[in-house]
Amino acid sequence: MTSADARDGADVGLLSPVRAGSAAEAATGDRAFLQAMLDAEAALTRAQARLGLAPASAASAVTAAARADAFDPADLARQAEATGNPVLPLVAALRTAVGPAVAGQVHRGATSQDVLDTAAMLVARRTCALVLTDLDRAIGQAAALAARHRDTPMPGRTLTQHAVPTTFGLKAAGWCSLLRDARRRVAAVRDSLPAQLGGAAGTLAAFAESATPEAALRLVTVYAQETGLAEPALPWHALRAPVADLGGVLAFATGALGKFAADVLVLSRSEIAELSVGAGGASSAMPHKSNPVAATLIAAAARQVPGLAAVLQGALVAEDERPAGAWHAEWHTLREALRLTGGAARCAAELSAELRPDPARMRANLDVTGGAIVSERFAVALAPYAGDVPLRALLADAASRARAERLPLADVLRASPPFAGVPDAVWYDLAAPDRYLGCGPLLVDRALAERPAAYGTTEEIM
Amino acid sequence: MTSADARDGADVGLLSPVRAGSAAEAATGDRAFLQAMLDAEAALTRAQARLGLAPASAASAVTAAARADAFDPADLARQAEATGNPVLPLVAALRTAVGPAVAGQVHRGATSQDVLDTAAMLVARRTCALVLTDLDRAIGQAAALAARHRDTPMPGRTLTQHAVPTTFGLKAAGWCSLLRDARRRVAAVRDSLPAQLGGAAGTLAAFAESATPEAALRLVTVYAQETGLAEPALPWHALRAPVADLGGVLAFATGALGKFAADVLVLSRSEIAELSVGAGGASSAMPHKSNPVAATLIAAAARQVPGLAAVLQGALVAEDERPAGAWHAEWHTLREALRLTGGAARCAAELSAELRPDPARMRANLDVTGGAIVSERFAVALAPYAGDVPLRALLADAASRARAERLPLADVLRASPPFAGVPDAVWYDLAAPDRYLGCGPLLVDRALAERPAAYGTTEEIM
Amino acid sequence: MTSADARDGADVGLLSPVRAGSAAEAATGDRAFLQAMLDAEAALTRAQARLGLAPASAASAVTAAARADAFDPADLARQAEATGNPVLPLVAALRTAVGPAVAGQVHRGATSQDVLDTAAMLVARRTCALVLTDLDRAIGQAAALAARHRDTPMPGRTLTQHAVPTTFGLKAAGWCSLLRDARRRVAAVRDSLPAQLGGAAGTLAAFAESATPEAALRLVTVYAQETGLAEPALPWHALRAPVADLGGVLAFATGALGKFAADVLVLSRSEIAELSVGAGGASSAMPHKSNPVAATLIAAAARQVPGLAAVLQGALVAEDERPAGAWHAEWHTLREALRLTGGAARCAAELSAELRPDPARMRANLDVTGGAIVSERFAVALAPYAGDVPLRALLADAASRARAERLPLADVLRASPPFAGVPDAVWYDLAAPDRYLGCGPLLVDRALAERPAAYGTTEEIM
Amino acid sequence: MTSADARDGADVGLLSPVRAGSAAEAATGDRAFLQAMLDAEAALTRAQARLGLAPASAASAVTAAARADAFDPADLARQAEATGNPVLPLVAALRTAVGPAVAGQVHRGATSQDVLDTAAMLVARRTCALVLTDLDRAIGQAAALAARHRDTPMPGRTLTQHAVPTTFGLKAAGWCSLLRDARRRVAAVRDSLPAQLGGAAGTLAAFAESATPEAALRLVTVYAQETGLAEPALPWHALRAPVADLGGVLAFATGALGKFAADVLVLSRSEIAELSVGAGGASSAMPHKSNPVAATLIAAAARQVPGLAAVLQGALVAEDERPAGAWHAEWHTLREALRLTGGAARCAAELSAELRPDPARMRANLDVTGGAIVSERFAVALAPYAGDVPLRALLADAASRARAERLPLADVLRASPPFAGVPDAVWYDLAAPDRYLGCGPLLVDRALAERPAAYGTTEEIM
Repeated sequence: MTSADARDGADVGLLSPVRAGSAAEAATGDRAFLQAMLDAEAALTRAQARLGLAPASAASAVTAAARADAFDPADLARQAEATGNPVLPLVAALRTAVGPAVAGQVHRGATSQDVLDTAAMLVARRTCALVLTDLDRAIGQAAALAARHRDTPMPGRTLTQHAVPTTFGLKAAGWCSLLRDARRRVAAVRDSLPAQLGGAAGTLAAFAESATPEAALRLVTVYAQETGLAEPALPWHALRAPVADLGGVLAFATGALGKFAADVLVLSRSEIAELSVGAGGASSAMPHKSNPVAATLIAAAARQVPGLAAVLQGALVAEDERPAGAWHAEWHTLREALRLTGGAARCAAELSAELRPDPARMRANLDVTGGAIVSERFAVALAPYAGDVPLRALLADAASRARAERLPLADVLRASPPFAGVPDAVWYDLAAPDRYLGCGPLLVDRALAERPAAYGTTEEIM
Repeated sequence: MTSADARDGADVGLLSPVRAGSAAEAATGDRAFLQAMLDAEAALTRAQARLGLAPASAASAVTAAARADAFDPADLARQAEATGNPVLPLVAALRTAVGPAVAGQVHRGATSQDVLDTAAMLVARRTCALVLTDLDRAIGQAAALAARHRDTPMPGRTLTQHAVPTTFGLKAAGWCSLLRDARRRVAAVRDSLPAQLGGAAGTLAAFAESATPEAALRLVTVYAQETGLAEPALPWHALRAPVADLGGVLAFATGALGKFAADVLVLSRSEIAELSVGAGGASSAMPHKSNPVAATLIAAAARQVPGLAAVLQGALVAEDERPAGAWHAEWHTLREALRLTGGAARCAAELSAELRPDPARMRANLDVTGGAIVSERFAVALAPYAGDVPLRALLADAASRARAERLPLADVLRASPPFAGVPDAVWYDLAAPDRYLGCGPLLVDRALAERPAAYGTTEEIM
Repeated sequence: MTSADARDGADVGLLSPVRAGSAAEAATGDRAFLQAMLDAEAALTRAQARLGLAPASAASAVTAAARADAFDPADLARQAEATGNPVLPLVAALRTAVGPAVAGQVHRGATSQDVLDTAAMLVARRTCALVLTDLDRAIGQAAALAARHRDTPMPGRTLTQHAVPTTFGLKAAGWCSLLRDARRRVAAVRDSLPAQLGGAAGTLAAFAESATPEAALRLVTVYAQETGLAEPALPWHALRAPVADLGGVLAFATGALGKFAADVLVLSRSEIAELSVGAGGASSAMPHKSNPVAATLIAAAARQVPGLAAVLQGALVAEDERPAGAWHAEWHTLREALRLTGGAARCAAELSAELRPDPARMRANLDVTGGAIVSERFAVALAPYAGDVPLRALLADAASRARAERLPLADVLRASPPFAGVPDAVWYDLAAPDRYLGCGPLLVDRALAERPAAYGTTEEIM
Repeated sequence: MTSADARDGADVGLLSPVRAGSAAEAATGDRAFLQAMLDAEAALTRAQARLGLAPASAASAVTAAARADAFDPADLARQAEATGNPVLPLVAALRTAVGPAVAGQVHRGATSQDVLDTAAMLVARRTCALVLTDLDRAIGQAAALAARHRDTPMPGRTLTQHAVPTTFGLKAAGWCSLLRDARRRVAAVRDSLPAQLGGAAGTLAAFAESATPEAALRLVTVYAQETGLAEPALPWHALRAPVADLGGVLAFATGALGKFAADVLVLSRSEIAELSVGAGGASSAMPHKSNPVAATLIAAAARQVPGLAAVLQGALVAEDERPAGAWHAEWHTLREALRLTGGAARCAAELSAELRPDPARMRANLDVTGGAIVSERFAVALAPYAGDVPLRALLADAASRARAERLPLADVLRASPPFAGVPDAVWYDLAAPDRYLGCGPLLVDRALAERPAAYGTTEEIM
């Protein structure tokens, strides 16, 4: 099978529109991983040169040769079936590329996992930067919506039913807050991602053999600097905290984006129509349709990432100095989680920019229950008038009758004997859903006042 | 961004060597899905022509134009971000390809989901065929190992510890049996995969409008025939049994393959060495290494598929006539599950062909516990001699002493007063691990006698 | 810690109302598992007695003593932390219960896994029967709804938006069909569940030692008969097909139930209100609320079971003759999956009985889009009038204008030049959503005509 | 059904020995959740009293009545099937308990979710404290092992094969490091867990109605103080960061514990025997067995928690102000994750205390490959002697021959022409596995020097 044939099996995004054509897709493709592996190899030789363990000319030569477009990822992939990972054939190809005089300096003292793990961290770091940019766009737009609609009343809904009024600003502030939580977690994990260098079984033995143990430890420091990644305390071939953390954070981020999308999907339902989503997606069958495509694609991504995260977290259970399977299950899984998150963040940035709330519709929907949406308020405010009458039962009964007879709840209540003396102005005020917003606007102010964490009081939370 | 740039984000197998370069990878790539979508479009027009609902010439023209290499999957993928799925841009491109006279016959009456679901079933069906071929190879080779080593004694191990002897034949018969279970499930699900045709919301309304409701139902029958898939009882846009079944079956299949791999990984450990695996995989650091690569890659696949299956099973919870997210989450997830299973089956077919059992090593390992591996037999066989002595406590004590003093358990027991009269020949027989194989060989015979199911007595099990 | 203290840690359903107080909960509690373990022990001794391998009096004594209320599950649970499973302490307690003369006949030749696996299959079999009963109730009620509302028009919804009309009967027929798919899978797996008997490492060696290998095989047959479970072809200590199958089937069943619940949740939204759900659940804060509680609890169960199934499917990867961890992870996971499924089926049986569709509301909602819900029909039916005008673009434009100006789509179209000559009667017919039901009613008939499978043409599907 | 019958369905740990009888089990049982709900109710009334919004006597009365043993969790559980959650019946029972004069002060202004979420956070906080205690024990014992065996050579193993030597100290230091990572995450999440108070739909409207919006915000502050939990920035009814974080952290913790267990399971295999685990678990069939029970149970827990975490992370996608299903799926799932983690930590604390390394066996196992375990070193150290000979190929060939002829690799190499001049002392040194430990001991020192994070350089990592 030729390389062209292999491309027949290529995934170029056709089944994953959430990330098709996105920067995150490009940053996590096989070519991007290939480049990151080459970056790791070049960083290693440069680090050795900086410590006098390799000629400076070798560092230059390896760095110059470490360009992904000079190698064929599909061909390396096929060789990896026999060797177990793509680094072995890549090292061979890179040695050929630099020529015999420098070949011995390529990958010297390292093991495949050093290169693959470092590459994965580089790819993750680069993708996290893209995610952060799109999260920032979405956060900014959600904050603007929250500020603009701080006092816009709309139905609060619980278990699909109208509960009490809220404001659209508070809903948007919630999106903002949760996305900021996601942002902090993504930024924190990005900054913590470590380079990997440990040699065959994590003792740095070949490096130590070529120099001294102390020099081998210094090499780790310098190598990390060359890669731009954090320095690890220990080689982490079988201590997979960084990958597990990425799993958890990416699941969090897509979950937070998914909350935003879930609300958009509800509020843009044909019968609710409190939000519309710009152009929307066309239909192959129905000329009138305007589908909430971006929200749908985010929702699809949010369904996929937690399961991928579970694989990454499960890979913590890594026997020996390099596990037979747990490590190998991480590679593609991490890539998928990264690109789904990146794609979902892109879609959210776009979606938040084109959201069009309809305050008039929100106001109209507040009347859907015939005033029952403020039944809680009646329960509080009418208590002084109720005397010995069991108010809660009376209200439930009135709500039930109002629903059956399609009457406003307030009218049914006014006709109840205990409330004969309640003044009209009180009824008018009580029955107005937009006068029962509680702390909604204050909570918007609080959310928009920059606080580092949306919940909790400490800096150190995850 | 041009199409070439998009390919920078392509996945060509670099991070998933288990399927890199495999037939299953090619059968599940974006080009294969694209071809299957085109096959669905062509089948629809042909079916309409067969029923006199479209000109025969249109059927020919659409069929002729339905060649994946005439379309650019990366470009379609990027358009799908706006439209929500790749069928819309594909239909537009196909209409252009067939020219204005035929354009109106393309996709007439259908909805995107009809095409995407039918395509997914076609891809699944084709991939299942590949999986079955490789399962058959692995089953045949496992059966041959079982027959050849029907009586080859080896340690049975439970919770990592030697338990009682078994035979390598019985272990291989177990692989064979479990892989046959997988085979039956894959074959059954493959034969059940239905075409999809329901129109905009599953009522076939546009087809009925163009003809009659009865004709629309006939169209479904003929369309299914043209695709080669089963005829559905109802449009299943929101009744996702076929996809959920695929999820369950693929998780089963990789699990069965994973059991085989797990045993190979244990038995090829350096200290156990009862199996070796042909050439093995080289190491980038250690010249002597011969890694059990194929088993490792299967193990990695088996870690990934159950989580993917959970997404597919979770997508059964599909609200409305087409859910916003659950359906979209299926596409790529199903592809990944299919290609991981196909890749794992390929690796197992190769691995089973190159497995080299080492009966001498198995025999030697039976002595690792100093004879304690037959302690259960002592408990049964010495009971007649034990009289009033609490035999189990005596044996546990003897086993503990034998371990501490590194003596054969039989020797410690022979020195125990109750057993003074036991003849030497009895001791000799009792202490021989290869004389305590129980029904091992008989069970091999039973497993190899062709039975449709490895467990259960009915044909109808899942 | 005393047993009473241990009960402080008991789970009696407080956090899982979906199954609290259900028959499935009782059938899967620790006492039920304890009884099933005792049933397995008794069946083993009885089987040995039937083959003359144990005294009949021992069989009677063990059977008589095998009553769960004579043992303390919390105490056995605590002992299991040291021994690794609860069978060891149970065997000790059962031996004490039967007295020294019979003690030696208890658990003779067996291993803990024989008893625990057989018990799990007994519990699963009993719970499946409960699930089937509740599925049958839900299926019957869904079928009745489908028949009654065969022709009741309602909006078909895709990606949250009105698409084309459908009928409530077709929606209910879909529930019916999917639940029947679940029913068949549950029934099939129930009938296939095997007894477990293999001894220490699956060779039946201790049984063979006490008698002959052939007798040991016969013992398996008779033991299976005594338990009422299927006879296994091989001991399946490390061949976990039955458990994996249960995982897949239970995930399917809760998914099918979850589809039903998801539709109920949408259709009972305050703004949609096409369904109401009987009494509904009260709120602690809002007197008017009537929450769709049963649907909510089913939805919650459907979110949990796929992940549990993934653990069960993952446990197929069972190294050696008894794996260290994979097997142990099955026990509680299987129990949870069983009781969630049983609880969800109970809730669905109740929910389907109390569902109240509101045809008037369905009809009213068909007008929510101002007639755009039949835009597809316009595209088909107006084609003959359109001449050279690009109809699809014209329709999309008209739909957009109708939406913006809040006009009926038909009115906008009638004012378009190409359609000047379309007769009024045609417009009247075209614009009526309840005249565009496609094959909806016919599909209901088809679904209600008893067919064994809702999709596919073969009997042998999974 | 009576309450006693309900207990037949109770889970008291029989199927989950990892946590049976543990403090974490007691801290997460239904009675503990019930107490935590009562604590939340009492805290609310006390907070209202502190702000002058309720009589002090009511606060005392509610606090006094808020004792779990006065209520029946099984009865509340059954009522929850109708109401959707257990808070409604609990509030009714608590109102009865405090009498009519105080009843109106119970749960005033709150919604069920306020109480259930606060209770879940209280239970999580209490359980995290138990987890931390057991993690500290395990960390301390792992650190002691690392220090004691800093220089104890053993085989490093990758992909199941001997790779290069390492030290047991470095392996134990890895456990220590990963468990410290887990510890930091558990501690951080524990400190961040917020109280919940928002009223019917998160606007605090009923509280604001009874007082003022500003007073309602102060009430949240005081309520959080009374519960001992963190103050939330916003009500988080539909912003589920705390629960998602718990999911991620608990999956991390069980994964870290699982790594420890996985290594123990490998190293205690009968053929490897480098570790033994104290008394071990007995077998019901085999008198000699000493199973690594604690490690097995930890391994089982580690298989279960990632899937539970995925449910919790998936619940971030919470539509509306209270989702219909996502929230309900959290309750039991979180409990299971907490108690599995607590149980696994307990087992790890016990296991680490009883681990017995066998340095002699480790040393003996270093010879299993006939010296090939230092083949990497030969590749480095013999390079100066190799001249033009391609050293890597020569070594691979020699390793292959040594394996085939069962000769020491060093002997084969010495007979190779290029190495004729290598002095005996050099061979002696090169061939000694315990002289090729690389930075192993130095890395142990580094790990044991207290650093806040085992990887990464920043404080802010997750």
